[in-house]
Amino acid sequence: MTNVRENNDMGHADFQALRDMANRIRLHSVRATSAAGSGHPTSCASIAEITSVLFFHTMRYRVQKPRDPNSDRFVLSKGHAAPALYAAWAEAGLFPVEDLLNLRKVDSDLEGHPTPRLEFIDVATGSLGQGLSCAAGMAYTGKYFDRASYRVFCVVGDGESAEGSIWEAMAFASFYKLDNLVAIFDVNRFGQSDLTALEHDLDAYRIRVEAFGWNTYVVDGHSVEELVQAFAAAEQVKDKPSCVIAKTFKGKGFPGSEDQAKFHGKVVGDKDLVIDSIEKQLVSKGSLNLEPRLPIDDAPPVNIQDLILPEPPNYRKGDRLAPRVGFASASSKLGKLNKRVITLDGDMRGSTFSNKFRETCPDQFLECFIAEQNMVGVAIGCATRDRTVVFLCTYGSFLTRAYDQIRMGAISQTNINILGSHPGVSVGADGPSQMGMEDMAMFRAVPNCTVFYPSDAVSMEGAVKLAACTKGIAYIRSTRSETSVIYDNEERFHIGEAKVVRQHPNDQVTVVAAGVTLDTALQAAAILETEGIHIRVIDPFTVKPLDRETILSAARATGGRVLTVEDHYPEGGIGEAVAAAIGDQSDIRVRILAVRDIPRSGPGDVLLDKYGLGPSSIIKAIKEDIGAN
Amino acid sequence: MTNVRENNDMGHADFQALRDMANRIRLHSVRATSAAGSGHPTSCASIAEITSVLFFHTMRYRVQKPRDPNSDRFVLSKGHAAPALYAAWAEAGLFPVEDLLNLRKVDSDLEGHPTPRLEFIDVATGSLGQGLSCAAGMAYTGKYFDRASYRVFCVVGDGESAEGSIWEAMAFASFYKLDNLVAIFDVNRFGQSDLTALEHDLDAYRIRVEAFGWNTYVVDGHSVEELVQAFAAAEQVKDKPSCVIAKTFKGKGFPGSEDQAKFHGKVVGDKDLVIDSIEKQLVSKGSLNLEPRLPIDDAPPVNIQDLILPEPPNYRKGDRLAPRVGFASASSKLGKLNKRVITLDGDMRGSTFSNKFRETCPDQFLECFIAEQNMVGVAIGCATRDRTVVFLCTYGSFLTRAYDQIRMGAISQTNINILGSHPGVSVGADGPSQMGMEDMAMFRAVPNCTVFYPSDAVSMEGAVKLAACTKGIAYIRSTRSETSVIYDNEERFHIGEAKVVRQHPNDQVTVVAAGVTLDTALQAAAILETEGIHIRVIDPFTVKPLDRETILSAARATGGRVLTVEDHYPEGGIGEAVAAAIGDQSDIRVRILAVRDIPRSGPGDVLLDKYGLGPSSIIKAIKEDIGAN
Repeated sequence: MTNVRENNDMGHADFQALRDMANRIRLHSVRATSAAGSGHPTSCASIAEITSVLFFHTMRYRVQKPRDPNSDRFVLSKGHAAPALYAAWAEAGLFPVEDLLNLRKVDSDLEGHPTPRLEFIDVATGSLGQGLSCAAGMAYTGKYFDRASYRVFCVVGDGESAEGSIWEAMAFASFYKLDNLVAIFDVNRFGQSDLTALEHDLDAYRIRVEAFGWNTYVVDGHSVEELVQAFAAAEQVKDKPSCVIAKTFKGKGFPGSEDQAKFHGKVVGDKDLVIDSIEKQLVSKGSLNLEPRLPIDDAPPVNIQDLILPEPPNYRKGDRLAPRVGFASASSKLGKLNKRVITLDGDMRGSTFSNKFRETCPDQFLECFIAEQNMVGVAIGCATRDRTVVFLCTYGSFLTRAYDQIRMGAISQTNINILGSHPGVSVGADGPSQMGMEDMAMFRAVPNCTVFYPSDAVSMEGAVKLAACTKGIAYIRSTRSETSVIYDNEERFHIGEAKVVRQHPNDQVTVVAAGVTLDTALQAAAILETEGIHIRVIDPFTVKPLDRETILSAARATGGRVLTVEDHYPEGGIGEAVAAAIGDQSDIRVRILAVRDIPRSGPGDVLLDKYGLGPSSIIKAIKEDIGAN
Repeated sequence: MTNVRENNDMGHADFQALRDMANRIRLHSVRATSAAGSGHPTSCASIAEITSVLFFHTMRYRVQKPRDPNSDRFVLSKGHAAPALYAAWAEAGLFPVEDLLNLRKVDSDLEGHPTPRLEFIDVATGSLGQGLSCAAGMAYTGKYFDRASYRVFCVVGDGESAEGSIWEAMAFASFYKLDNLVAIFDVNRFGQSDLTALEHDLDAYRIRVEAFGWNTYVVDGHSVEELVQAFAAAEQVKDKPSCVIAKTFKGKGFPGSEDQAKFHGKVVGDKDLVIDSIEKQLVSKGSLNLEPRLPIDDAPPVNIQDLILPEPPNYRKGDRLAPRVGFASASSKLGKLNKRVITLDGDMRGSTFSNKFRETCPDQFLECFIAEQNMVGVAIGCATRDRTVVFLCTYGSFLTRAYDQIRMGAISQTNINILGSHPGVSVGADGPSQMGMEDMAMFRAVPNCTVFYPSDAVSMEGAVKLAACTKGIAYIRSTRSETSVIYDNEERFHIGEAKVVRQHPNDQVTVVAAGVTLDTALQAAAILETEGIHIRVIDPFTVKPLDRETILSAARATGGRVLTVEDHYPEGGIGEAVAAAIGDQSDIRVRILAVRDIPRSGPGDVLLDKYGLGPSSIIKAIKEDIGAN
């Protein structure tokens, strides 16, 4: 592969080749979307020159090894322009251009919006406003963890920039001086239904982006010369990320729809006319002799496999302490063991207890401030190409802020690990805004997500270790209040394996509970025992996957009576998980104790009683179940 | 009540009274949080002067009638400073100052963060970054719907301004020229765990806020004179919202913690020392003679009760059309009937079909651009004090972007109605980023939320009408693809009332399904009937509340066999709702058909089959259930 642009010498012929390539990208976008009968060709047309210049001049990457850690990264944040991106990789030689016509077919990985089923896609996009956070995470990793030369490029739509998450990413990138990050704003002045708020007021964009600490260039987005020049200049800028604000036209090059409203997401009307018109613009009919530059191979090798806890948990059975202490300990141990284990926090470290990790491994801690959407996107970016193992921490309640990013993370096949602290009414006097009451529902509905709910500090350490080693998103529901240490330090934990923590031959009811309600259930069990009533108590450890067999077996041994108790709303949590898991069985009855009102402020233990989760409520439910008084 | 400041004449004595009031607010904050043993006194201290000036000089409001529609509105977006806000209302005379010591008690409505259990709180805050959107909605309502004189004030924390939602609100407010909106940035340079990113760089804030189109003032946030002056100047500015960027100190006036890190959310160390120090600052010991100004009474009366569909649905049974057509029709009918019915959309109106409402009632339509967080907050703001009935529309998948705002909306006791379009794999070729796969789980876990899932255009119209008349959040899952019209135009619908849409004396299985899968279930039923197998098909209409009785009765009549079918992930949707609802019954078995993988792009009907939701999959499951081949 010839590297003709080592010295940035741009001959006249190369600009024309880049223009031709842009028009090829247009042609592919039209043909593919017309074949599919759906798609966003006008959105592709506005970024054709941008894509051409980036993929065939600016970026350094190995075409045949799309996940090479040395390569520059590209994120198409405006994911609906996927056909343009696919066209670039096909033209670069990764797969035959004929395959582009399989766009959106059920048996093709060239989906309507990019997903990492494709090897050349790092993060799924299509829900707008998220790609820049992922790109910022990649850039942060490149600059501070890999300390490598690769750069990160991200194309953002103008309509998309109304999303606040873009500005979170902007603030993050400038604060952390990510000078290896280049954003390109495709200012084509149309959103889905109409003109954007700022239309073609490029200065308004420039002023905003500069206010957020970025270096900016305002260019004609259809001039390959101006784009080449801007990207070259950006590469020289230190300590600031750069933003190329590109004036473009939606449907550029499409007669009849260029710069017109009402053509978003519409296949071109007269395909032959449009194709003919674009083809007339082509100068070269044969090979364009455009070869992407090779990367600089200076990303260090990374091994994030086979993480273990170098020391086991060290707690005393019977002691009262908050499971979140176990997170502090286990994450710090992992961080000391492997420098690629990193922790992100959303300005809550004194509460989530990620502060210990920060003290232990300061260079592996990343403060993300009060911006949860961006934190999740950054985490996903940091974890791409297996460069890091990521833990991110905030309150379970505030993770609702980032549910779209979490949802897209699953589609991105990310492996990030999320700690949601302060679940339930047991949070107490801060009140409902701070209480995670729906987090299990949220994370259970995420595909391939493991939902850990460790009930003591020992099992918390087990959960942290397992999360670090498991694919897919891991969610750890981290209890703030004290619970009893109930496991030996040597106890082994497995995903999908519940523990029977209390049993007796005459057990009359199976109770499934976790965290603070496992604690109250065990208290209830001790009291009931003094009355000669025995209950079997199960700690699910993971709510997803749920250990159906253990629960079913116990249910059958206890007359088919199951009681679930959770500090969470009734929907989507432990109770519904159990009911659904054993719902296909006759003779099993499941009763669900959960919080059935919007909670209020008050002492945590008082609230547990008030909302029916304390020992007395559990005792009452048990007695009703067995028909005793 | 004497209105001494009619002509903005500020005598020397008034400034001192305002200073004294600020210190009283400090004292109350210290006493209350110390009595509670928790809270955020240092966060209250930085806004003491701001609160004093707003409540005792600038704002026009009726103390004894906190929800007066003519009054200025105040939103404490940094909700953890609640004690300062409570102190202001107590000092204004709404309740005895002694009550302030009940902060955070379980039997007091003075909760840790403000909720509208208190009459003087319009929207709950405490999850940061949301209050400004609500304030923007109130301001939009005041300017364009009420066309009244009231103004809206919102205090935002500096750490809080890292939230992207703040910048969505900023963009919205300047675009819509909300010159009746004043934001106050409390720049005290500390977040929860440490310094904020911008610390006391007030110019950096100013440049950002101005870039987003606001008029700004930079002031000493502890100078009542400067605050008074800034607010007075802001009132004269036309066509732009105003932002007062206030330099403040966290813990101002607290010896030992003023402007120090590590004191966020901490009760003061030496209470007596701190109180003594503040009391020494007081000049007046008796009444301060500060009376809030009365409002200008020009908000029109509004009646949003008793909404009805002026014309019934008008569809033909058996026709194929998308239920979202019913939304377009019903919402437009309501909008024509009552000018207070408004619709917001997130740049998706060609897809959600809110475009019809926009054509029918253009002054009642509010384009919110691609910023779902802000759209939900604005909706909540518009609905406060019953000024409007709000519908807001976007894709179900993108509502995950606003889950925190939705969650807080429930705590705010809002009545907004949310339309989530394009649920499930039936969305087709756009792929998973655009498919709502978890929206029922999300909304079911919202307290007091009604979850409608109408299966045809007739029942959609019924759902829209019921949503408009029902308290609490309403969610309508709006099917994009065509389904058969199965109801008569005269059919009546009720929340929590399912419809048995197909039955036969020899039904062997009860099928519960909705939307596109009700359609495929009915197709399956027709095919099975030709083979002599009968199934009962139930349309739940509302998934929450679920009609347990109808489902149970049918289950008992069909040998205890229930099959649920939903275009949604398995967790938290129809299947789990049914399993949980009848889980306490023996002899009922529930089997759940749902989407058990991350979907991919492809034709919608092909995907339905691929993911086991098409007629053939339903038939297969039925036959397995009854033991036939």
